[in-house]
Amino acid sequence: MSSEQLASHGHTTAAQVRKDLSHFGSFGKRGLGYSIEELSVRLRAILGLDRVWQVVLVGAGRIGSALFEYPDFKMRGYDCVAIFDSDPEKIGVQWGTTTIHSSERLEAVIEQLDVDLVILAVPASVAQEIADRAVEAGVRGILNFAPVQIKVPDSIPVEDVNLVMQLEALSFKITRGGAGE
Amino acid sequence: MSSEQLASHGHTTAAQVRKDLSHFGSFGKRGLGYSIEELSVRLRAILGLDRVWQVVLVGAGRIGSALFEYPDFKMRGYDCVAIFDSDPEKIGVQWGTTTIHSSERLEAVIEQLDVDLVILAVPASVAQEIADRAVEAGVRGILNFAPVQIKVPDSIPVEDVNLVMQLEALSFKITRGGAGE
Repeated sequence: MSSEQLASHGHTTAAQVRKDLSHFGSFGKRGLGYSIEELSVRLRAILGLDRVWQVVLVGAGRIGSALFEYPDFKMRGYDCVAIFDSDPEKIGVQWGTTTIHSSERLEAVIEQLDVDLVILAVPASVAQEIADRAVEAGVRGILNFAPVQIKVPDSIPVEDVNLVMQLEALSFKITRGGAGE
Repeated sequence: MSSEQLASHGHTTAAQVRKDLSHFGSFGKRGLGYSIEELSVRLRAILGLDRVWQVVLVGAGRIGSALFEYPDFKMRGYDCVAIFDSDPEKIGVQWGTTTIHSSERLEAVIEQLDVDLVILAVPASVAQEIADRAVEAGVRGILNFAPVQIKVPDSIPVEDVNLVMQLEALSFKITRGGAGE
């Protein structure tokens, strides 16, 4: 496949495709284009997707349960190995084959199952405390749904999902006129 | 408040605060800093937040219901005026004071209530069709939770929420070592 073809799939330009790939080494052959299979294998390795990531979900509320059923998770290599909640009525319940544990067991489970990532779907008021405990227990990254900025050591990446900020981004683009990207 | 103080709240630098604000006009007084009240009013106007935005939610499933209960929506000026679903068992049900309508009524309700924004919380298979119909009926922006890239005219901004891509961003940062931002 040519860089032009790749670019049209990604809504970008052929020059950008070649430039982006060049950051990670040498891909494809001049005049012949790219082998899709080779490109796919190498990109998955670069993105760290050539392995399974152990994930725990903290917060078994509406957002947590919506996330848990998100069809792409497992397919893409993210295995949710435990769920935590502080509500006694939820503790011990199973979602599929995954058990909801008491939040008190967070550190023990993270260490025991060698968990990589934590998804925080808890109220803003407890997000920092849970994040601190998860980092202390050894998680390596956090996907944060709590509407609050959490502080962790620089070595721990955090991705925030902030729906209000995304709505505000839409409002801004509409107000300023024209969409852009 | 000084630009240094603003910067520390936003985890950035005083120079960046002054540079960012300068894109939108003249703020604050040299040596005196910024009036928080004036800054707040003007920034809300710039972001288009000095009005109420009419929002409809399409998809009354788990993600939809989690979104609907998100505490900050209403407080920040987003009024969810209608919900749509194609499931006959959900149609006519009320969430609070908001009614779930048949998706067939999408265009009629958007036009009647002068809706600005649509939140797409539908399966990937129907997202493009719903987006086309919403745009045709006059919505001005889309917050897309469906795990698919939707195509709309350039004048309509789209914000995508893609949880798998955010997990992949974490994996990449961890794999490459160091968090960065």
